[in-house]
Amino acid sequence: MATLTLEKIAARGYGASGNLVGGETLKPIKFERDAPKDNEVLIEVLYCGVCHSDVHQVENDWKNTIYPCVPGHEVIGRITYAGSAVTKFAEGEIVGVGCMIDSCRSCSACRDGEEQFCEGPHGPTMTYNGYFKPDASEYNTYGGYSTNLVVPEDFLLKIPDALDIRKAAPILCAGITTYSPLKHWNVKPGDKVAIAGIGGLGHMAVMIAKAMGAEVTAITTHEDKRKLAGELGADKVIVSDNKAEMKRHEKYFNFILVTIPDAFDVNPYVCLLRRRGSLVTVGLLAPYKTPVNNMDVASQGRSIGGSLIGGIAETQEVLNFCAEHNILPHVEMIEMEDINDAFEKLKDDDVRFRYVIDMRAFTAKNV
Amino acid sequence: MATLTLEKIAARGYGASGNLVGGETLKPIKFERDAPKDNEVLIEVLYCGVCHSDVHQVENDWKNTIYPCVPGHEVIGRITYAGSAVTKFAEGEIVGVGCMIDSCRSCSACRDGEEQFCEGPHGPTMTYNGYFKPDASEYNTYGGYSTNLVVPEDFLLKIPDALDIRKAAPILCAGITTYSPLKHWNVKPGDKVAIAGIGGLGHMAVMIAKAMGAEVTAITTHEDKRKLAGELGADKVIVSDNKAEMKRHEKYFNFILVTIPDAFDVNPYVCLLRRRGSLVTVGLLAPYKTPVNNMDVASQGRSIGGSLIGGIAETQEVLNFCAEHNILPHVEMIEMEDINDAFEKLKDDDVRFRYVIDMRAFTAKNV
Repeated sequence: MATLTLEKIAARGYGASGNLVGGETLKPIKFERDAPKDNEVLIEVLYCGVCHSDVHQVENDWKNTIYPCVPGHEVIGRITYAGSAVTKFAEGEIVGVGCMIDSCRSCSACRDGEEQFCEGPHGPTMTYNGYFKPDASEYNTYGGYSTNLVVPEDFLLKIPDALDIRKAAPILCAGITTYSPLKHWNVKPGDKVAIAGIGGLGHMAVMIAKAMGAEVTAITTHEDKRKLAGELGADKVIVSDNKAEMKRHEKYFNFILVTIPDAFDVNPYVCLLRRRGSLVTVGLLAPYKTPVNNMDVASQGRSIGGSLIGGIAETQEVLNFCAEHNILPHVEMIEMEDINDAFEKLKDDDVRFRYVIDMRAFTAKNV
Repeated sequence: MATLTLEKIAARGYGASGNLVGGETLKPIKFERDAPKDNEVLIEVLYCGVCHSDVHQVENDWKNTIYPCVPGHEVIGRITYAGSAVTKFAEGEIVGVGCMIDSCRSCSACRDGEEQFCEGPHGPTMTYNGYFKPDASEYNTYGGYSTNLVVPEDFLLKIPDALDIRKAAPILCAGITTYSPLKHWNVKPGDKVAIAGIGGLGHMAVMIAKAMGAEVTAITTHEDKRKLAGELGADKVIVSDNKAEMKRHEKYFNFILVTIPDAFDVNPYVCLLRRRGSLVTVGLLAPYKTPVNNMDVASQGRSIGGSLIGGIAETQEVLNFCAEHNILPHVEMIEMEDINDAFEKLKDDDVRFRYVIDMRAFTAKNV
């Protein structure tokens, strides 16, 4: 393809205006992106996962949303233009984009491959909702609910041939978000691991922990997820409001990964940890519902941690891990126009287990 | 000395009756102990530290107190009789007794040297307030606020010659309680460590962390402890209600040990942790004051843990460590009869930094 001389790239997508009165819905939106620099690529978005974070961001749950907001950070696309300095990727190649598209690359976190914790002046550049500070008022980014993306090659992921590209998108957020803590907290073959919350993140966590060799227990609030969790590979299922089941598993688990996206009482889960066990919560970026009881934590030398997505190299690692272990997200394909209905179902936990938007029809429309 | 043929050993001490109406005070109490078995020793108590746990237990703050309650688990004494199977200690020897006097010795925790987490049927046998369950109704133990103690030799500690026995007692609880998490969470030379709460536990933690080679910051609520903390060896002091000082230390510390004994808001301390840093709370065996904000925890991959005293081998280790590094608790010596006044001052944080009861005069009284 020819060298791009445009300064701006036209894009279409679905976004929120910020008019939250009466309930925000996503509407078609036209906008422009800066044209790719020498080290960047332009991507045609093919598939984009629908993450619970998209709902939180659109609804300004974290009080940091910059409108208009075009969500989407689980992107599989095709490179339609590669800048002159791009060396690791080629035009036409299928690639992935996750939660970040840039970072300072020089702080200790970036040097450690933990770009998600970038200590640069405005933190990592998220795929949507741009910089957090101090430039937030002047800068925004728009995500994958759109026809295209512009991304530096260092933040692109290779998609292994073994992965079905229609289903792989959720690995880029749900996959890395669960893989990273399982790895960081050193889950080993034979460890007893519980995954609490069997939704978009949790269903990936069950499959990944199982592939790591752990004995995996799914903990769900939904009696009707017992069978589903078994089908994902869970060795056991606990329904969290079944007190006898919970009691029976006190001091049982080496590691518990909680993927419940709303404020919950962490204490009943803490009691399920063995001596020196750790519980890590992902997805909940808010306070727990109740104070942690340090009697339960200290009396077994337990720990409660939190984790946030993962670094770029680690995201490549989980993609390769999923390819190697035949792990694919369980997805329901939707069209871009179905997004508001999907958001409602997601809020009601009525998806098994991740919506993926097939962007091809939307992109093909010449409007 | 001759072989003991008594079945019971007479003891005198100070204890609480359980009549908490109008404020519990400790009163002189006479009681009996089971005579030492072959593997046990009888100890004449010389010095006994006054721990915040003693107050909690006497006042039934943990809802598990068995009255009468004779506290005291920081004991330095002299062996006056050793059972026939005792091989590691001799009559006349000066020894230490900490928070535990027995455990099942066969569970995985005991095998790992973490007797404080003993998974036997009634957990470890604490030095006072006996078994927790299921035998609590039929069994109790009485601690070091008394003329003597009976202890299995495996739960005795050697007191290195270099330690001043008048001052060493608090190492047996305050020392091990702070040393164990500093070691377990792998504090290394050069690490930036904060100690929050500069009382009985905290003052030991400052000295121990400093001897481990860390850069140590004391965090206190008391402006008047600035100078004292410096004298303990702290490199810096932060007063926790000084918002500018707290703000300046956001994301600064690798490890924070909190020794605040009452419910507090942990969130301002969490924000002081670096990426992947850990905060551990000791002494608070109750819920925090407010829910932990997982936004702060997850956004830097932080962890919040709890810790409980330490194992017997580790207690010997901290005694040796203190001897090697010339660390001694800063103590105020009192007589047994002063204990109620000492409890009041301890509750008001009016002690620098630990009361130690000199039991010799009390024991000498022939009543």
